[in-house]
Amino acid sequence: MLDISLLGTGGMMPLPNRFLTSLLLRLNGSMILVDCGEGTQITAKLLGWGFKNIDVMCFTHYHADHISGLPGMLLSIGNSGRTEPITIIGPVGLKTVYAGLSVIAPELPFEVNCIELDENGSGTFSFGDLIISAIKLNHKIPCSAYSFTVKRTGKFDITKAEKLPIPRNFWSRLQKGETIEYEGNTYTPDMVLGETRKGLKVSYCTDTRPVDTIPDFIRDSDLFICEGMYGETEMLEKLKKKKHMIFQEAAELAKQGNVKEMWLTHFSPALTDPKLFEKNAKAIFENSKVGCDRMIKILSFEE
Amino acid sequence: MLDISLLGTGGMMPLPNRFLTSLLLRLNGSMILVDCGEGTQITAKLLGWGFKNIDVMCFTHYHADHISGLPGMLLSIGNSGRTEPITIIGPVGLKTVYAGLSVIAPELPFEVNCIELDENGSGTFSFGDLIISAIKLNHKIPCSAYSFTVKRTGKFDITKAEKLPIPRNFWSRLQKGETIEYEGNTYTPDMVLGETRKGLKVSYCTDTRPVDTIPDFIRDSDLFICEGMYGETEMLEKLKKKKHMIFQEAAELAKQGNVKEMWLTHFSPALTDPKLFEKNAKAIFENSKVGCDRMIKILSFEE
Repeated sequence: MLDISLLGTGGMMPLPNRFLTSLLLRLNGSMILVDCGEGTQITAKLLGWGFKNIDVMCFTHYHADHISGLPGMLLSIGNSGRTEPITIIGPVGLKTVYAGLSVIAPELPFEVNCIELDENGSGTFSFGDLIISAIKLNHKIPCSAYSFTVKRTGKFDITKAEKLPIPRNFWSRLQKGETIEYEGNTYTPDMVLGETRKGLKVSYCTDTRPVDTIPDFIRDSDLFICEGMYGETEMLEKLKKKKHMIFQEAAELAKQGNVKEMWLTHFSPALTDPKLFEKNAKAIFENSKVGCDRMIKILSFEE
Repeated sequence: MLDISLLGTGGMMPLPNRFLTSLLLRLNGSMILVDCGEGTQITAKLLGWGFKNIDVMCFTHYHADHISGLPGMLLSIGNSGRTEPITIIGPVGLKTVYAGLSVIAPELPFEVNCIELDENGSGTFSFGDLIISAIKLNHKIPCSAYSFTVKRTGKFDITKAEKLPIPRNFWSRLQKGETIEYEGNTYTPDMVLGETRKGLKVSYCTDTRPVDTIPDFIRDSDLFICEGMYGETEMLEKLKKKKHMIFQEAAELAKQGNVKEMWLTHFSPALTDPKLFEKNAKAIFENSKVGCDRMIKILSFEE
């Protein structure tokens, strides 16, 4: 199961009733935080999943509303008793930004490993069963989208296994992904498994104008989380300059990417009731939803 | 009138129902913010005094819970339309800390002037009618207490004024503080004013162990705002190590400093209901109050 919580849905500044846009994923007890603006630790506290198991943090870019909560979050993770290293991932410049922010959190009880995406804003990383990928977006400063994929192997195929000239007690090791050497031959997991089954995929895309590469990047996501600063077409020209999107543009990407569901987030502080404009997204992509703080979804493998 | 709001009352980390310790003062439309941890801009928004007129920010020290909200606050002040310079004051190191934090707020529509206290953690500054003073405290890193004093001149004394060989139309200029040269002689405001009257004084003291110099520094304050991490005597040994105080120590300082009223703040996240221990402070200094977020007091000159 992959647990997903949209910790906040605001852009620019935290509001009393709307924290800044941030995503928390939980898989097999390990957590991944995506963006961490001012106040993210407060909404995370309200959510109640704890801090100690945040193993990875991904940053889309270094505008304050996406990273200003980092020093406080690291200190709170430290207070939770964590001593294991944490990995933080972000576009080029992460090491400089981290060096700057850590002047107010100079001593932590764990190591922080900074991994910068490549010059093209891309990268792919494996953490246990999870694969994290990034591609470049189009914002005022370097910014990347992320996808989170949980792969799923094929079913154990007893017919295939029985044809192999190896003892039965090797079967479960092969099934779990091990490669076995036996009597001079090599046996790989695919020899006992059926076709790879559909896994889980979540994608997260903010702050940006629409980009041609987004639909392929988010393709077939179970959940696509996307920015939409405003819901009115009249705001489009303003957002082109500010390098943001309206709801309709996010919905168009969701449609092109054939995702199952899309959540809108990163609302302008001036947009008091984003729900009023949900219909504008739904007209383009039916399963669009206006996000709200700590909105949760639990994804499970299909039966 | 000096308006005072204790924006938050927490220590270490912001909680869903308790923002980090911070103070907002307002005098003649100009505002002074003291400390700015993560989320301070949210509680300031709830208070509703606006951001644009924050002319000065004072920092006690550079632990994240007292300064992590600075980049976001500066950006929100910028979004409020301010273009006039802002002054920030703090212990030695302010320029380095500001350089670090401003990596995520590199472009502001106003100048930020950094003023560092002296090597002894002291300093005195005038802003209009307000005098800001600082002295060194005893914390794990350099930390200072602040006092905010609004001076009040004596009443206009017509008997004294009539004795001066100058025309009556100079009287109001002298009363307002101007020095006048007339027919070769110098006339100063005290020549038309009675004895200096009692002004207003607010003092703010966190994070520290009790220090001998505090009572004199806070002497006769109308309001003394002081840290108290816990209200139980049993916590004293722990707090000696962590360089903090219990309620009783704060109350002892209030008593020695002959202040009118004392508000406790900077409660440990583990202290769920500080009000339960208010009596321990009151037993030493009767007018002790456990602070709560956005607690307000309006001080006026005595009639």
